[in-house]
Amino acid sequence: MPKEHHQSKSEKVIHYIKNKISEGEWPIGHKIASQRKLAEELGVNRSTVVAALEQLKEDGLLKGVMGKGTIVINNTWTLLAAMPQPETNEKPKPSLLKLNQSDEAEAFEPDTAEDFIQLSKGELAEDIFPVDNMQQVMMRLAGSLGAFGYEEPKGYLPLREAISAYMKRQGKEVSAESILIVSGALQGIQLISAGLLTRGSSLLLEKPSYLFSMHVFQSAGMTLKGLPMDEDGLIPSSIPKHIDPSVPAIVYTIPSFHNPTGVLMTEKRRKELLDLCASMRLPIIEDDIYRELWIDAPPPPPLASLDENGDVLYVGSLSKTLSPGLRIGWIAGAEPVIERLAEIKRQTDYGSSSLSQRVAAEWMASGLYEEHLSFVRQQLKKRRTAAISMLQTHLGDLAEWDIPSGGFLIWLRLKANRRVKDIHAKAYHAGILLNPGSIYTNEAVQAIRLSYGYASMEDFETGIKKLKQIILDSL
Amino acid sequence: MPKEHHQSKSEKVIHYIKNKISEGEWPIGHKIASQRKLAEELGVNRSTVVAALEQLKEDGLLKGVMGKGTIVINNTWTLLAAMPQPETNEKPKPSLLKLNQSDEAEAFEPDTAEDFIQLSKGELAEDIFPVDNMQQVMMRLAGSLGAFGYEEPKGYLPLREAISAYMKRQGKEVSAESILIVSGALQGIQLISAGLLTRGSSLLLEKPSYLFSMHVFQSAGMTLKGLPMDEDGLIPSSIPKHIDPSVPAIVYTIPSFHNPTGVLMTEKRRKELLDLCASMRLPIIEDDIYRELWIDAPPPPPLASLDENGDVLYVGSLSKTLSPGLRIGWIAGAEPVIERLAEIKRQTDYGSSSLSQRVAAEWMASGLYEEHLSFVRQQLKKRRTAAISMLQTHLGDLAEWDIPSGGFLIWLRLKANRRVKDIHAKAYHAGILLNPGSIYTNEAVQAIRLSYGYASMEDFETGIKKLKQIILDSL
Repeated sequence: MPKEHHQSKSEKVIHYIKNKISEGEWPIGHKIASQRKLAEELGVNRSTVVAALEQLKEDGLLKGVMGKGTIVINNTWTLLAAMPQPETNEKPKPSLLKLNQSDEAEAFEPDTAEDFIQLSKGELAEDIFPVDNMQQVMMRLAGSLGAFGYEEPKGYLPLREAISAYMKRQGKEVSAESILIVSGALQGIQLISAGLLTRGSSLLLEKPSYLFSMHVFQSAGMTLKGLPMDEDGLIPSSIPKHIDPSVPAIVYTIPSFHNPTGVLMTEKRRKELLDLCASMRLPIIEDDIYRELWIDAPPPPPLASLDENGDVLYVGSLSKTLSPGLRIGWIAGAEPVIERLAEIKRQTDYGSSSLSQRVAAEWMASGLYEEHLSFVRQQLKKRRTAAISMLQTHLGDLAEWDIPSGGFLIWLRLKANRRVKDIHAKAYHAGILLNPGSIYTNEAVQAIRLSYGYASMEDFETGIKKLKQIILDSL
Repeated sequence: MPKEHHQSKSEKVIHYIKNKISEGEWPIGHKIASQRKLAEELGVNRSTVVAALEQLKEDGLLKGVMGKGTIVINNTWTLLAAMPQPETNEKPKPSLLKLNQSDEAEAFEPDTAEDFIQLSKGELAEDIFPVDNMQQVMMRLAGSLGAFGYEEPKGYLPLREAISAYMKRQGKEVSAESILIVSGALQGIQLISAGLLTRGSSLLLEKPSYLFSMHVFQSAGMTLKGLPMDEDGLIPSSIPKHIDPSVPAIVYTIPSFHNPTGVLMTEKRRKELLDLCASMRLPIIEDDIYRELWIDAPPPPPLASLDENGDVLYVGSLSKTLSPGLRIGWIAGAEPVIERLAEIKRQTDYGSSSLSQRVAAEWMASGLYEEHLSFVRQQLKKRRTAAISMLQTHLGDLAEWDIPSGGFLIWLRLKANRRVKDIHAKAYHAGILLNPGSIYTNEAVQAIRLSYGYASMEDFETGIKKLKQIILDSL
C-alpha cells in the first residue's frame, strides 16, 4: 500500500527541475540559474538547492561544466530512470519491481565486499565449490559438443529427464514433460506470479520469510500475509483466519531449512498443511531449494510427493548446492500449468542458457551431483559445529538460537531490546555484513540472520567477537 | 484493446464446469454427470458437451476413469492456468504476457520440426555454428575455471569490458559501467519495458516489425503505433503525427537488416531520426542484433554512436551471430539508466549464467568472434546468391522482394491478392514452415517472411518450388 508521501524541500526542488526538463522548457545544454538565484526563486535555503542538484547530477540529468555552470545533459531515458515509481495517483506499472536496494542484502554487497566478513551471504563458500569436477564436466561437455541453438520451450530434455529421475528419488513421480527449467528459483517464482496469479490476491507465507525481502509478489499487486511458525514449521491452523473468501489466495512455503530461520517442517506438519490446503482449494508453492543441505538426516519427503491433487508447484534449484552462477532451477507441477509457464518463460527470455543446462544435466545424470552433495553435507556439519560453539562462547548471554538440522542459516534472537538497525550499521562500519531480521518481516524484529556457509571459520569467529562488542556497546 | 468476447456454447459449458470446480461444489474425485444429462441440463447439443469435456481434460481439470466416468482431478493450479486472461472488466494482470502461441513462430516449432523444411527460423544453420572453436573456448575456460557464484548486478566484468571495446570499434564510446548483460535481446527489451515505461505509453516502431509478434509491450499496457518505412528505413517525418503530447512515447527501431523486411537504414535517415527524436525528447531503443550480419558492406554507425544526449538505449546480442543458446545480449546506455535496469534484472533472475558470460567474454576478447563473423558473412553471401536465384526462377512471376544487403531475411510480397493464412496452412501440411507477414503487422498483409539462414540450399529450393505450387493452387 502506498505510504504517505512526505515530500522534502529538496524533493520539491528536484521535482521542479525535472518538470522544466521533461516539459522541454530546459533543453539539453540549457544552463540552469545559479544556486543563489534558484534558492531565492523557490524560497528555500541554498543548501537545499545544493542537495537537489547533487541528486540530479547523480541521476545523470545535470552536469557541472567548467566555466559554464550547471547544464542539462539528458532529457529522455535518464529522466525516466530517475522518475519515482507511481505510488498513489497512477495505476501501478505492470511488473515494475519495487526497488529497494538498501534493504535487500542477499547477493548484493558493497563494491568492496571482499574486504568484509560475510556473515550475510546466502551461498556456499568458494572452498566448497567443486572446481575439479566442474572443470571435468566442462571438458567432457566440450568434447561432445555439437551446434546448439534455442532449446525446447520447457528446457533441455536430458536435464529435465535427469531432474525427473532425481525427483523420483525424493519420492515425487513427475515426468520430464511436467518440468520447466528456469534461471534459478527466483525466476520460477516470478513466472508463477506473472503467469498464474491475479492482482489483489493474497499470498500466505511464513513470517519471517525470504520472500518479504524480494518485491516480486508485492509488485505483482499481491498482499503478503505472514503466518506464525514454531520449531515444527509453519502453523497450518493459522491459515483459515487469514483467508477472505472473496479474495483468491495461495500459500508459499520453504519447508526444508527455511530461510531465514533454518526450521525444518516436520512430516506431520506437512500432511496437515496439505490436507488443509486441499480442503480449502489453496494452491501451494513449495520452495525447496535447501532440501539437499541436510546435515543430521534427510528431510521428510517434499509436500509435492504427498500431493495427489496437483495442488503443489515445486521449485528446486542448483544454486544453493552446486553454484548460483549456473542459474539453473526448475518448476515441477501439473503439465497444463507447466505448459503455460513455459510459454511465459519463452516470451520472457527464450529459455535458459544451453551451456548451463548441459552442464547441469551432466552433473545430475552422472552421479557427480550426489557425490558433491555428500561433500557439502560434511563441510556444513563441520561448519555448523564450529559456528555453534563460537556463538555459545561469545553470544550465549546475549542471544538465543536454534541449532539448524540443515542449511547454513541461523536466526539469532537478541535477548534484550536493542535497535538491530544500529547494530547492523555499526557492524557494517566494523567490516561485517549481517542481514537484519527486519528484511524478512518488513517490520522491526529483534533478530539477525547469520550464515555459516560462506565466511571462513576464522572470519566467522572474528565477526562474532566484534558483533558481541557491538551488541554490548548498544546497551 | 479487448476484442469483443464471443462466448461459444462450448465455452459456456466450460465456464459452467470451471465454476462448479472453483466454488468447491465439485471437489477432487467428484464424478460429473453423463454427457447426455449435462447436455439436457444446460440445453445444448451433446457434441457441445463432448467438445467442452475434451478441452477440460486437456487443461488437466478432468479425467476419464475406466468404469467411473469423468471425474474432477484438480482444482487449484490447473484451474488458474486454464483461466482466460482478464480482458474487459478486470484490471490487466501485471506483466501477464498475452499468450499467442499459434501466431508466433520464431523459435517455436512443432515437435516434429526436424521433418519440416524451415524457411521461417530466425537463426543460423547448424553448419555455420563454430563447433571446433566453441569446443576450444570451453576447454580453455575449463582449464582456468575457479569457483563462480552470483555475478555483479551488471554482469561479468571481463565480458562488459570486451563489449565496451567492441562498441568502441562500432564507433560508440561506452564504459563497462554503462553496459548491462542480459539473457538475450528479448530480455533486454522486457527489462526496459518493465522498468522504465509507463502503462499507457505509446511505442512507435516500424511496421511491419518483429515486435508486433511478441507481446512484451502490449502486456505492459503500451500501444504499438506502426510507422511507415521505405527502402531507406523508417520514415522519421511520419513520427510527429503519431504523437499525442499528453501521452509519453518512445521509439523502437531495428535499423540494421530489419526484422522482417531486411531493410538497412541509411546514415542520412539515422541522423534525421536522431535529430527529430532529440528535438521531441523521444527516447529510442535501438535493437541492433543483426548489425554484424552485413554481406556487402558494413552498415552505417549505430544510432547510439551519433547520440550525444543519451537518447538511445542500445541493445546488442550474440544470438544471431554466434549462438542463441548462449542467451547473451547487452544493453548500453546512460549509466543511471543501466543502474536501474541492473537492479530490476537482479530482482528478476539474479543475473545471467556465469558460464555463458565467461564463454562469451572469451569469444569477444580473444578475437575469435571477429574471425567467426567473417566466416558467417561468407556463408550468408553464398546463401543469399543461391536463394535469390531460386526465387527468381520459381517465384519471379508471383512475388517481389528486395535483395537484402545483410542478415538472412527476405520479405516476399505476393503480387496477386491471396489469402496468406491459407498459403501458410497449406505449406505447413506440405512440410514447410513459413512466417506469414501478418505476425509482424497484426493485420492481414500480402507478404511472407523467408529466411535463407537456416535450411540447406537444397531444402530451400524444394520449399520454394512447393510454395510456388501452393500459391498457384490458391488462385
